[in-house]
Amino acid sequence: MNTKIIAYIIGFLLIIEGLLMLPGVVFSLYYGDEDVLAIVFSSSITVITGLVLWFFSKSKEHQEIKKRDGYIIVALGWFLMSVFGTLPFLIHGSVPSFIDAFFETVSGFTTTGASVIRDVEILPHGILFWRSMTHWIGGMGIIVLSLAILPLLGIGGMQLYVAEVAGPTKDKLHPRVQETAKRLWGIYVLITIAQTFLLLFGGMNLFDSLCHSFGTVATGGFSTKNASVAFYNSAYIDYVIIFFMFISGTNFTLHYLALHGKIKSYFEDEEFRFYLIFVLTVVFSIGIYLTITSSRGFEEAVRHAAFSVISILSSTGFVTDDYEKWGYFFSTIFLVLLLMGACAGSTSGGIKMVRHYLLLKNSVYELKRLIHPNAILPVRYNKKAVAPDIISKVSAFTLLYFFIFALASIIMAMTGLELSSAMGAVAACLGNIGPGLGSTGPATTFANVSDFGKAFLSFIMLLGRLELFTILIIFSPSFWKK
Amino acid sequence: MNTKIIAYIIGFLLIIEGLLMLPGVVFSLYYGDEDVLAIVFSSSITVITGLVLWFFSKSKEHQEIKKRDGYIIVALGWFLMSVFGTLPFLIHGSVPSFIDAFFETVSGFTTTGASVIRDVEILPHGILFWRSMTHWIGGMGIIVLSLAILPLLGIGGMQLYVAEVAGPTKDKLHPRVQETAKRLWGIYVLITIAQTFLLLFGGMNLFDSLCHSFGTVATGGFSTKNASVAFYNSAYIDYVIIFFMFISGTNFTLHYLALHGKIKSYFEDEEFRFYLIFVLTVVFSIGIYLTITSSRGFEEAVRHAAFSVISILSSTGFVTDDYEKWGYFFSTIFLVLLLMGACAGSTSGGIKMVRHYLLLKNSVYELKRLIHPNAILPVRYNKKAVAPDIISKVSAFTLLYFFIFALASIIMAMTGLELSSAMGAVAACLGNIGPGLGSTGPATTFANVSDFGKAFLSFIMLLGRLELFTILIIFSPSFWKK
Repeated sequence: MNTKIIAYIIGFLLIIEGLLMLPGVVFSLYYGDEDVLAIVFSSSITVITGLVLWFFSKSKEHQEIKKRDGYIIVALGWFLMSVFGTLPFLIHGSVPSFIDAFFETVSGFTTTGASVIRDVEILPHGILFWRSMTHWIGGMGIIVLSLAILPLLGIGGMQLYVAEVAGPTKDKLHPRVQETAKRLWGIYVLITIAQTFLLLFGGMNLFDSLCHSFGTVATGGFSTKNASVAFYNSAYIDYVIIFFMFISGTNFTLHYLALHGKIKSYFEDEEFRFYLIFVLTVVFSIGIYLTITSSRGFEEAVRHAAFSVISILSSTGFVTDDYEKWGYFFSTIFLVLLLMGACAGSTSGGIKMVRHYLLLKNSVYELKRLIHPNAILPVRYNKKAVAPDIISKVSAFTLLYFFIFALASIIMAMTGLELSSAMGAVAACLGNIGPGLGSTGPATTFANVSDFGKAFLSFIMLLGRLELFTILIIFSPSFWKK
Repeated sequence: MNTKIIAYIIGFLLIIEGLLMLPGVVFSLYYGDEDVLAIVFSSSITVITGLVLWFFSKSKEHQEIKKRDGYIIVALGWFLMSVFGTLPFLIHGSVPSFIDAFFETVSGFTTTGASVIRDVEILPHGILFWRSMTHWIGGMGIIVLSLAILPLLGIGGMQLYVAEVAGPTKDKLHPRVQETAKRLWGIYVLITIAQTFLLLFGGMNLFDSLCHSFGTVATGGFSTKNASVAFYNSAYIDYVIIFFMFISGTNFTLHYLALHGKIKSYFEDEEFRFYLIFVLTVVFSIGIYLTITSSRGFEEAVRHAAFSVISILSSTGFVTDDYEKWGYFFSTIFLVLLLMGACAGSTSGGIKMVRHYLLLKNSVYELKRLIHPNAILPVRYNKKAVAPDIISKVSAFTLLYFFIFALASIIMAMTGLELSSAMGAVAACLGNIGPGLGSTGPATTFANVSDFGKAFLSFIMLLGRLELFTILIIFSPSFWKK
């Protein structure tokens, strides 16, 4: 293990984190809030810690990073950023309990958006801005993680693409990571700015526009209002957020290609087509059902259906309506949606469309193989045959996901949640979504979960965000053997 | 498609079925019940139909069966036997609705044991005996199906064994099927007789002893009492049934080897070891929890824990206690148990231990492969390397199982069940277990499910019993192409 390079990179991350605590101070000063000192103090602690780490390990700057160190940097980085991220909440006193503040920060950085704060509207602007900023930082991290780092470590839904893009990777992280990261961050910033302007245009103030844009592009879901997006009661704002949730759940590589004139790329991508068709089918089915069974008109019904379905699938978690009140069987439908996720290479969490699609296709192919036992029938994806070991990796991931979901649901049930709330809470945290079902559903917060439950769910959020294996590998004994 | 050979075999099955309706008449005559004529009439219709089919297709007796015909015989056989099996209920009038009688018969033949009859104690003995007999026949069918027929068709958890036993199978059913079947039926009958004697010894009358033995060895679960096994309130009877449920959930090949002196085979088998350790861990954990939290002594707590856990895992479904009343989180624990199943090659249903075990092992190996990307690490099972395409088949089955479970839960929720009842009912029917959760839980019946729901769950029971692919393949267009 190369502790110096690990300390160097984590030091660098903490410096960035500390500096990004500060922009919110501008709003606090403007609105005359009393959180300025707390935030500046938190920022200083974080930046100084980062500088110390960075300074004492500086000589290793140009050394290449080995895979094993990559895993540690990713897991430890996310964990330590969450620990330091609690400082503004704790020092200001708006979230006095460490475990609550840690849950909230992990929820932020993992872009989950599950909250333990009952009343967010009484929080000062600087704290609220930092809370939404954790989403934005986390989302940036995920883009790089899922498109550049995890595939090189051999993990994640993007292996399919990477196999052809990066070639064999040996035991070192590819230098192209930096280049890729810059391009993708450009798109990320562009989307954020575009949405902020469109929300401003709809009458939202700058502070709320920025916070909601951070929450959308990162598919996070923290709102500055207790009622979430329902507060604005505006069809225009609903549609803007629906659109941006949908594109934030799309593979960012496709956006990059589209910006370079290859708009066709969207429709040439099998995962995107599957995502689009799935979303349209579910949204219009529910929309028509709601039109018939409620007093809502067709437009309003489809809008709420689209908002809720895309919010859950993209793992954002903004709320305009409580889907559990649409009919008794919507708990079951949304529990399934909570386990789906959107596209690989996006900021969304969960199992993701490409895995469901490949496994469903593989099951159909198993049927064909039974009928034609002598034919060689490899699963094809984006016009190429998928290697059997990719299918095996995808299966292993998905089944492990269900296994952890089941085990974690039992543990959460033991902390005092009934069946649907326990499963909903775990599905929502493992998939980095936010609202689950019942007592952790869209109409409420995670404030009533026990302290053990909050700590456990924080672990589950990190596990889900880092695609299971990054965390599990660090807990495996053979990882630490020479 | 060779319709003659299909008609020949199904005719033969109907003759057997019709004849097996008759033994119950002995009890009806002894107890002076009024169902004798109804049963004799039902038997006659079934036998005559069978004879007609058999007679008109007799010339094809010695022709070999092709795979495609194999699928049709298995699916159509199970379906038609269920249709004719409703006759005693319908003609006697004890279950006047066809859909109710069909649900009850499918539940019997698939050895599910889910019932729509609210009061079984008012039924005459002949009808009750036929109801338990459907279990016994179904269990016999499953033993042959899972150990001899499905593996040759390329389906089922026993492929691992078959690959080494039967060698390449080409396109024809192996003649060894008959031989294997005879041996296994011998064991099946032996277990039934042993349990009947042990229950008689515990003070149960002959009728109840036989019915409960049929329900146990087939891992069915129909009881002759409304309170199920709780009626007898006898520790001795509980232990006898616990023991026989456990061995009925064990691979029958191991029993065969043990009877030939190779008792070590049990412990040389990885699936059995996993099953044993899993059962002991769960039973004693729950037993200790119940001892602490309830007024029960340790023996009683462990006994009820063992009874419920083994009843669900082995997919029997007998009840001595309502596990949902042990604590609010037991719904979650039992929902997970409902999705597990016992050993392949037993009469139990569900995903089965070998699949969970292999996939868990494969996930652990994926971690190892990440750490040592250049090492070749095939999953090993019973000291042999498992071929990647077996892992792929097992994954495809398990994920399809979860997919169908999710889809069917949504459909059942739409018929009016809330989340946990819907999921419980589907898990219980797909896994051929019987009691689920909530309004379809161990303390109640399926009588309140809507007619559509009953028809749909009947389909789900057959789907689960025939290991998904047997049914799905028949619905796939390419199956019917030349």
